[in-house]
Amino acid sequence: MSVPYNIESSKYNLPASKRIPPIALPFVSERALKTLDVVEKFVEEECIPADVVFAQQIGTATEARFAAHPQIIEDLKVKAKQLGLWNMFLPRNHFSQGAGFSNLEYGLMAEILGKSATASEATNCAAPDTGNMEVIAKYGTEAQKQKWLTPLLDGKIRSAFLMTEPDIASSDATNIQLQITKEGNSWVLNGSKWWSSGAGDLRCQIYIVMGKTDPNNSNKHLQQSVILVPASTPGITINRMLSVFGFDDAPHGHGHITFNNVRVPLDHIVLGPGKGFEIIQGRLGPGRIHHAMRSIGAAEKALDWFLARINDQRKKPFGKVLSEHGIMLERIAKSRVEIDSSRLVVLNAAIAIDNADAKSALKEIAIAKVLVPATLLAVIDRAIQAYGGAGVCQDTPLAKMYSNGRTMRIVDGPDEVHMLQLGKNENKRAEFAAKKIEFQRIKGLRLLEERGLKPVDPLFLGRVSGGVAKL
Amino acid sequence: MSVPYNIESSKYNLPASKRIPPIALPFVSERALKTLDVVEKFVEEECIPADVVFAQQIGTATEARFAAHPQIIEDLKVKAKQLGLWNMFLPRNHFSQGAGFSNLEYGLMAEILGKSATASEATNCAAPDTGNMEVIAKYGTEAQKQKWLTPLLDGKIRSAFLMTEPDIASSDATNIQLQITKEGNSWVLNGSKWWSSGAGDLRCQIYIVMGKTDPNNSNKHLQQSVILVPASTPGITINRMLSVFGFDDAPHGHGHITFNNVRVPLDHIVLGPGKGFEIIQGRLGPGRIHHAMRSIGAAEKALDWFLARINDQRKKPFGKVLSEHGIMLERIAKSRVEIDSSRLVVLNAAIAIDNADAKSALKEIAIAKVLVPATLLAVIDRAIQAYGGAGVCQDTPLAKMYSNGRTMRIVDGPDEVHMLQLGKNENKRAEFAAKKIEFQRIKGLRLLEERGLKPVDPLFLGRVSGGVAKL
Amino acid sequence: MSVPYNIESSKYNLPASKRIPPIALPFVSERALKTLDVVEKFVEEECIPADVVFAQQIGTATEARFAAHPQIIEDLKVKAKQLGLWNMFLPRNHFSQGAGFSNLEYGLMAEILGKSATASEATNCAAPDTGNMEVIAKYGTEAQKQKWLTPLLDGKIRSAFLMTEPDIASSDATNIQLQITKEGNSWVLNGSKWWSSGAGDLRCQIYIVMGKTDPNNSNKHLQQSVILVPASTPGITINRMLSVFGFDDAPHGHGHITFNNVRVPLDHIVLGPGKGFEIIQGRLGPGRIHHAMRSIGAAEKALDWFLARINDQRKKPFGKVLSEHGIMLERIAKSRVEIDSSRLVVLNAAIAIDNADAKSALKEIAIAKVLVPATLLAVIDRAIQAYGGAGVCQDTPLAKMYSNGRTMRIVDGPDEVHMLQLGKNENKRAEFAAKKIEFQRIKGLRLLEERGLKPVDPLFLGRVSGGVAKL
Amino acid sequence: MSVPYNIESSKYNLPASKRIPPIALPFVSERALKTLDVVEKFVEEECIPADVVFAQQIGTATEARFAAHPQIIEDLKVKAKQLGLWNMFLPRNHFSQGAGFSNLEYGLMAEILGKSATASEATNCAAPDTGNMEVIAKYGTEAQKQKWLTPLLDGKIRSAFLMTEPDIASSDATNIQLQITKEGNSWVLNGSKWWSSGAGDLRCQIYIVMGKTDPNNSNKHLQQSVILVPASTPGITINRMLSVFGFDDAPHGHGHITFNNVRVPLDHIVLGPGKGFEIIQGRLGPGRIHHAMRSIGAAEKALDWFLARINDQRKKPFGKVLSEHGIMLERIAKSRVEIDSSRLVVLNAAIAIDNADAKSALKEIAIAKVLVPATLLAVIDRAIQAYGGAGVCQDTPLAKMYSNGRTMRIVDGPDEVHMLQLGKNENKRAEFAAKKIEFQRIKGLRLLEERGLKPVDPLFLGRVSGGVAKL
Repeated sequence: MSVPYNIESSKYNLPASKRIPPIALPFVSERALKTLDVVEKFVEEECIPADVVFAQQIGTATEARFAAHPQIIEDLKVKAKQLGLWNMFLPRNHFSQGAGFSNLEYGLMAEILGKSATASEATNCAAPDTGNMEVIAKYGTEAQKQKWLTPLLDGKIRSAFLMTEPDIASSDATNIQLQITKEGNSWVLNGSKWWSSGAGDLRCQIYIVMGKTDPNNSNKHLQQSVILVPASTPGITINRMLSVFGFDDAPHGHGHITFNNVRVPLDHIVLGPGKGFEIIQGRLGPGRIHHAMRSIGAAEKALDWFLARINDQRKKPFGKVLSEHGIMLERIAKSRVEIDSSRLVVLNAAIAIDNADAKSALKEIAIAKVLVPATLLAVIDRAIQAYGGAGVCQDTPLAKMYSNGRTMRIVDGPDEVHMLQLGKNENKRAEFAAKKIEFQRIKGLRLLEERGLKPVDPLFLGRVSGGVAKL
Repeated sequence: MSVPYNIESSKYNLPASKRIPPIALPFVSERALKTLDVVEKFVEEECIPADVVFAQQIGTATEARFAAHPQIIEDLKVKAKQLGLWNMFLPRNHFSQGAGFSNLEYGLMAEILGKSATASEATNCAAPDTGNMEVIAKYGTEAQKQKWLTPLLDGKIRSAFLMTEPDIASSDATNIQLQITKEGNSWVLNGSKWWSSGAGDLRCQIYIVMGKTDPNNSNKHLQQSVILVPASTPGITINRMLSVFGFDDAPHGHGHITFNNVRVPLDHIVLGPGKGFEIIQGRLGPGRIHHAMRSIGAAEKALDWFLARINDQRKKPFGKVLSEHGIMLERIAKSRVEIDSSRLVVLNAAIAIDNADAKSALKEIAIAKVLVPATLLAVIDRAIQAYGGAGVCQDTPLAKMYSNGRTMRIVDGPDEVHMLQLGKNENKRAEFAAKKIEFQRIKGLRLLEERGLKPVDPLFLGRVSGGVAKL
Repeated sequence: MSVPYNIESSKYNLPASKRIPPIALPFVSERALKTLDVVEKFVEEECIPADVVFAQQIGTATEARFAAHPQIIEDLKVKAKQLGLWNMFLPRNHFSQGAGFSNLEYGLMAEILGKSATASEATNCAAPDTGNMEVIAKYGTEAQKQKWLTPLLDGKIRSAFLMTEPDIASSDATNIQLQITKEGNSWVLNGSKWWSSGAGDLRCQIYIVMGKTDPNNSNKHLQQSVILVPASTPGITINRMLSVFGFDDAPHGHGHITFNNVRVPLDHIVLGPGKGFEIIQGRLGPGRIHHAMRSIGAAEKALDWFLARINDQRKKPFGKVLSEHGIMLERIAKSRVEIDSSRLVVLNAAIAIDNADAKSALKEIAIAKVLVPATLLAVIDRAIQAYGGAGVCQDTPLAKMYSNGRTMRIVDGPDEVHMLQLGKNENKRAEFAAKKIEFQRIKGLRLLEERGLKPVDPLFLGRVSGGVAKL
Repeated sequence: MSVPYNIESSKYNLPASKRIPPIALPFVSERALKTLDVVEKFVEEECIPADVVFAQQIGTATEARFAAHPQIIEDLKVKAKQLGLWNMFLPRNHFSQGAGFSNLEYGLMAEILGKSATASEATNCAAPDTGNMEVIAKYGTEAQKQKWLTPLLDGKIRSAFLMTEPDIASSDATNIQLQITKEGNSWVLNGSKWWSSGAGDLRCQIYIVMGKTDPNNSNKHLQQSVILVPASTPGITINRMLSVFGFDDAPHGHGHITFNNVRVPLDHIVLGPGKGFEIIQGRLGPGRIHHAMRSIGAAEKALDWFLARINDQRKKPFGKVLSEHGIMLERIAKSRVEIDSSRLVVLNAAIAIDNADAKSALKEIAIAKVLVPATLLAVIDRAIQAYGGAGVCQDTPLAKMYSNGRTMRIVDGPDEVHMLQLGKNENKRAEFAAKKIEFQRIKGLRLLEERGLKPVDPLFLGRVSGGVAKL
């Protein structure tokens, strides 16, 4: 098939490598620039058209949908590998197994991937595998790596990350209740997990599970451990999948899973008992950047759809296409302001991680985590409104995108947790700020004194008992 | 005076050079980093304490206030020159007369300057002189430079920029009406201008005036000229000053000025007749970056005051200091998110100008122009609310800062003009976006066909006359 | 089953009749007050618990879901009739067939009905039957009434209203394209409709169709006609149902329907050819009030769920239940402010209709139409956020409520159309406003003159050529 | 002067009595309707034109401004009395001395009064006299009434209410510190007050002061007393006046006052020691309604100015008057939605007070207190933006109105206090809400059981160890 829209030809259609904000350019290698354009061509011309095939190949009945593995995904994977688009997510600073890009460089690619339902998996850059691979690569034993990391890196199997639980406020990870108790040569797991994303896919063979090995440890951050649990281990039941605004996200899905005396060998623990909190803290940083950049891409896609709709010559309410109604141009502008500022925030956070690690980029990550979903939802919502009925139904990707976007305000910690953390950290500056202001006030008084001036209030009155006082 | 707060000592008090967003760092030279910290020390320890002296030295009655020139300004200028803090605003790419910094580097300094009422003038970086100096340096003749640029660069005189007019919609510069007609060896000016900022200062000796030399030119952008008019030219009357909310901004102020047969020699025109539009377009870009970065600084200052207030141990409504009431931490976090994202937007625009020129950075400048004042006003408003009565009156700088900030949504083009421009430009992509979406749809159908699949709607019903149709 | 929560006992649990805003009370009869409490008891104790049965009785596969008629609905209808809760929607001012309440009185009941998925149909007050019954009762012939109104009033059949079309901007009703041409003794319909809500239900036997009988009439509001079309007429195909986010709203649903030479007798037209626009204008007023009040009820329900969640003692992030985190109380308060102000707006519009008719209440209806969905979505969104994962999935009614609520910004005219109309109408006052302000200005000058005062500007300067002018 | 704009003639210019929301009409007597139109004519045709005279008669220098008493006020008072517009604020339910209107009826009048700077005082309905008169009329002794209430009712003197203090968080009235100690036959006052509005006026002869007579009382609400203090009592100093965004609000003003051994006779206490809290609670309810309705009037005035500006034919940015740019119509509509909904909220609160008292209308008053200033500021801000430079300076009333409006979010308790109270009260319903939801859930399960149905999750999977479980 020849390319029906010339990706080089128009100034309104610069390739991705030419659209990078100038402030980010010094951080992007020549190789990454080239790869970025390959990613874009692959996503726009191969993956997005394939999304509809994926949807058809999944089928309709729930059970079938969660047993499906659309062939189109494998077709795309072959192409992606041929193009060298594979495992771009593994940052070169920390891992040798990836494609050798920085978090920032991959972030720019993730933006493009975020425009398609199939592109992330097609390039083996799909959550939660990405974070899971990072965990095993960073903390796993050689045996763990051989058993699980190798097939994950090859895209042969998939994985899930089981942390959230239904019965507690799991926005606070110290509340986790799933028990991991040592019995002889085994760790025995009991409890339940939900929002186990990816668990619906029959190719999901390994669960990375967070639980408590030492629930009574006085240090709340040493109670947790992370353990590798093969999906086929007896005692595990995927009771049901969770919907997101009516969508089941099959075959990937979000599982509600119970563990009933699930036994795994002792060597399945990662890094050691009590290291769970440390592990997940490192895991979440880059993952949030990935989510955020994919969300930026989704917002750009929604804006594309918005533009297409408001200039549709067949749709003229009150005699004018929508873009001629002034409020629509304002909405475009708002979207552009929000998207561009959000992108800068994420890229800045990516660099902060690249420069050091996720822990030292807490503030930048938190800002990105909170700002981006708000932008995404606002932009999609405007597009939905422009499409009217077509915006909420199956005829545009918008309603599904909104549903995904809405979960971004919840997953990996709800907005409120990040805002609270941001607020608390910033508030630590308060004492210094107060001292500085007080110093400046006192020095001001001294400067006046040195000049023989009194600090007279601009509205000094000095009126006594109804009269006027003397100065 | 010994330093009462140790600018190096605390992790909550990193010097400015350590607070630069990581994404901006590659653009900042070692020299600029050092200068930045000198600027901060100068502003926090010298200028802000001096602000109160400035206020006292202006006096009270209107006429006196607009005849005042507070000595403290000259004292600060001496110190600033000693510290090498002079004319930092003139970008090294385009001018040899300045301190040799880029727009981005100066932007970071302007943020600090924006925290004080005296700092910008103390370092000869105050508007509108900055933009005026750029105009003369870039477009002026040698004679014009010698006469006006030299004393301006030395901080000996001040200047005003006269563009806005009271009787027209001057958000659209093509509406300008002041007449400039050639009579013999003179240009003769008739008309009126307002919001002539800086015209209140008796040291303001030169006006840069925009008017029409060719009002009937069919090209609306060739009708205007820019001309230099000495403030003492007969025929000029400063009728009154304009207040901002209830503030007069003396002695600088905002003048309402009439021109009645004001004659200047022919060589006072800048660049030539009909070049006015071209000149102001170049002038406004960097100026918007300066305004924006000073606004970022003002927002940081408001946040400092906010932090100081909500942790004031003497103020405990309902038994807790305000920071212990949850909503205050959320407001800190919102402010941090808004300030940090706005700063990135401005720095990115500064780099876009540094990389090429203001014209090619239109989008980035427009985004900064719109986003920053909204952030500034939101942050100040939260601080005002935390202070209650003290927030709106003379006891904090907040009400004055709010008033200044509110004008930022109006000066150099109101929000709406920039949003309209942003929206229109982005909308030019619409045709491409629509074509791309259509291509993807058609290619999707072909992919289905190739696989022998029909595109079945997920909610296909096919019910005929109350029954069910065949596929 | 005994009542497990005593609806009379607590001051936090006043019955609906005691929660009416005082300003609305004079408009509510004793009989309506009593009925309102019966409605509440029926909805809270019978209908909401039945919602889950309804969901189970629909089944899973698409085709089955749209062939289902859950028995629980019929069970509830029997109870509702016994309680005298039937056809309350038909306003007493205009119709004799209803329960004899005003629009305001029914509005208060609709609020309660809006809390349950089954309550509106159980009391024969479900859209679109309500509006359709009004149309036939008001404009129909005796034959039309006997054939369709009688079984509709009895709840024996259901109906759909077919106006919106997929290929045009149908927010502007003059764009409607479905052709209705006279051929011999028949009207022949060709075209397509979508968002035909209710068409999914097999009991839906009659379509009220809007189309064009006179597409070339120079008066754009005389081109349209409304015609009654039995669902079983040959040539009609329900191609598919439309989803709302991922929900299908079965069995009711939203149909995409084509008309291919569909023939109905000439007497099936309502009121006469060319009367279509007039009919729908009258139809939409009360319908918007119903939607709005049900939305108020939904918002109250979401707030109930929010309260339940933030006080859940099992969910303590960071050691405190959510309601002890300050921001949650602020969110409750915001929700209360928004709900209570929105309710007043709707009730005021209902009275405006009761006092005269929908046409003279255009402004009030438009305000309600725009304000209420915004309130509803804001309140639900807060609840979703408080529930986290449970908020977006099938474990709470919130995601489904949000989806419904989102369509409220689109159906019966998108927000933008109503805002445009409101803005245009209000703008007609501009000339008078300008004249009034000018009069006041001139009279002020005269008052000054009479007192021998000159209007001196507060910042008068009058400085000439660098000096100071004389007054 | 003949009426230059015919208040009866146009449908865009209905008199106030015809613009009352239909839902409020039953509460308005014929006499109030007539009076309302007289108020409107007086305000629009007499007071607003007089506002400029008032401003000129105050003068310029601070001391003079706070010694001024513009004659125009007395002229207007004569006219107002002739028209029967005097003391309309005293509600007929509780007082015999007023004009005999309800809080709702006066509320409608206060809306009109709120459009002028002079109208409230001209009709003796100005704060803080209104609340002060209510206090003395309700709680005062005969002697107190004769001495102070009579001249206040006659408009001969003015008064101030001294509650807020500079050194504490006085949003929480229990923090008040001013000491009132009994010494012999006197109460002796020591402490300081600020935001003592009205204290600037030389005619202000009586202060109603809140202080602590029993600071150690274990009941925090019995520590306070209210006491009458003549302004001329020795020991009182009005140190200075407080500005509001640069405005001094002279001669009324906001005083910062100190009490240094100020002695008043024992009989100057109101109602008795320890009754302070009770008194101010009753005082604030109607006052908040007055403020709110005046704010509604101010918002209407701002909208008038907005309309005048966006239709000004001399101001055409980009070739069109502003109202033809689509976003302006949307802003009109937003303003109309916000104003109309806010008005309903205030009127509903007024009726709640009329029906019983302020205490039982806490919720309704709090909603009005929070919602109205937000509306007012939003509407004025839009008008300022439309006017550009003219909007922030002395050429329109907008900047001054914004400044006043901004204080409305602070006076009589900041937004946050009211939101907290609203949130806490509403949260008391939580237990009931949770029980109701639980009841409904359990009853739903029972209904299923009765019908032999199992509650199957819509996405039931029941997959065990990678396979599929049996139901």
